[in-house]
Amino acid sequence: MRPYDQRLDHLLARAARVFADKGYHPTTMRDLSAASGMSLAGMYYYVSGKEDLLALIQERCFARVLEGAQQAVGTASDPVERLQAFIRHHVSFFAQHMAEMKVLSHEPPPRGVGVIKRRYVDLLEAVLKDAAPDEQAVDRNAAAYILFGMMNWIYNWYDPAGEIDPARLADLMASIFLGGFVEAHPEAKVTHGNND
Amino acid sequence: MRPYDQRLDHLLARAARVFADKGYHPTTMRDLSAASGMSLAGMYYYVSGKEDLLALIQERCFARVLEGAQQAVGTASDPVERLQAFIRHHVSFFAQHMAEMKVLSHEPPPRGVGVIKRRYVDLLEAVLKDAAPDEQAVDRNAAAYILFGMMNWIYNWYDPAGEIDPARLADLMASIFLGGFVEAHPEAKVTHGNND
Repeated sequence: MRPYDQRLDHLLARAARVFADKGYHPTTMRDLSAASGMSLAGMYYYVSGKEDLLALIQERCFARVLEGAQQAVGTASDPVERLQAFIRHHVSFFAQHMAEMKVLSHEPPPRGVGVIKRRYVDLLEAVLKDAAPDEQAVDRNAAAYILFGMMNWIYNWYDPAGEIDPARLADLMASIFLGGFVEAHPEAKVTHGNND
Repeated sequence: MRPYDQRLDHLLARAARVFADKGYHPTTMRDLSAASGMSLAGMYYYVSGKEDLLALIQERCFARVLEGAQQAVGTASDPVERLQAFIRHHVSFFAQHMAEMKVLSHEPPPRGVGVIKRRYVDLLEAVLKDAAPDEQAVDRNAAAYILFGMMNWIYNWYDPAGEIDPARLADLMASIFLGGFVEAHPEAKVTHGNND
């Protein structure tokens, strides 16, 4: 990575942490200067302001998670493995980028980011379609967001340095999504799509 | 409900919507006056300011969801039904309170609310302990937050007036959490807690 990109990466990572802790709106460029150890003039060499920083954090994050997921899914050999690979990649990526995850969740994405985000959702939906071909499209679409929900919520509670490491968390989520948490109980077999 | 409570309820519901749409930090009491149709003086009869409003929204919301969940769980007859009842109640409550859900997720709770929130998590953990007694405590604790994640994320994507009504969404989530989404595939039986 070139020194320019390294410095920008450093700035984006620190800014994401400040936005996550303090909130985007109350944060000033001065706060970001203190957190990054860069002068105001130094920061303006890389970005045009706070909005630009937010857009860059979101853009880079979605571009990387999309690229990584395409690779992870591409190396798996069957539909269920592809789904597991997607889940493992998403969880391990965001366990290392929890500040970015919080920022991505709390601030609306700028225009260009919506397109990458859509491609990422499309990728999961395609994987899900292969893994659960018998489900109705409307349930599969909801299931994609249900899966994103369980994975994305981690910034509210999960400590990657705690008892459960990211690989184990990803396996737990994959096992719940694929086979349920209450497997031992036969009465747990609820028919879904049952609109009571 | 007494007129005082009705007026306060109206103010809290409108304020939650404004906080959710515009963000808590940029919102002014003047914005809230416009949204609620109440004068500034009228609002100050009920609350001491924006912070007080936020605290009241969070407090009432958690108190109601806890009380409702205790009732829902109390009428169910076995552990799996209690878990389904908890999920159905949570999803139907927050499908009707998506603005409050967003505010609850984005703003840190004031001191007193933390206690009610803890009791609500404890209730789910107790229900989960009965429904999945063979799981390790650490996985069960994570599973509680995984379940909250899938349910709470709905404010990011779900439209209660769309194709899937709240009862069907709750059933879909219960079926995923209890039995998995990819039931037809025998290879989907991943052992969880597998720390690879």
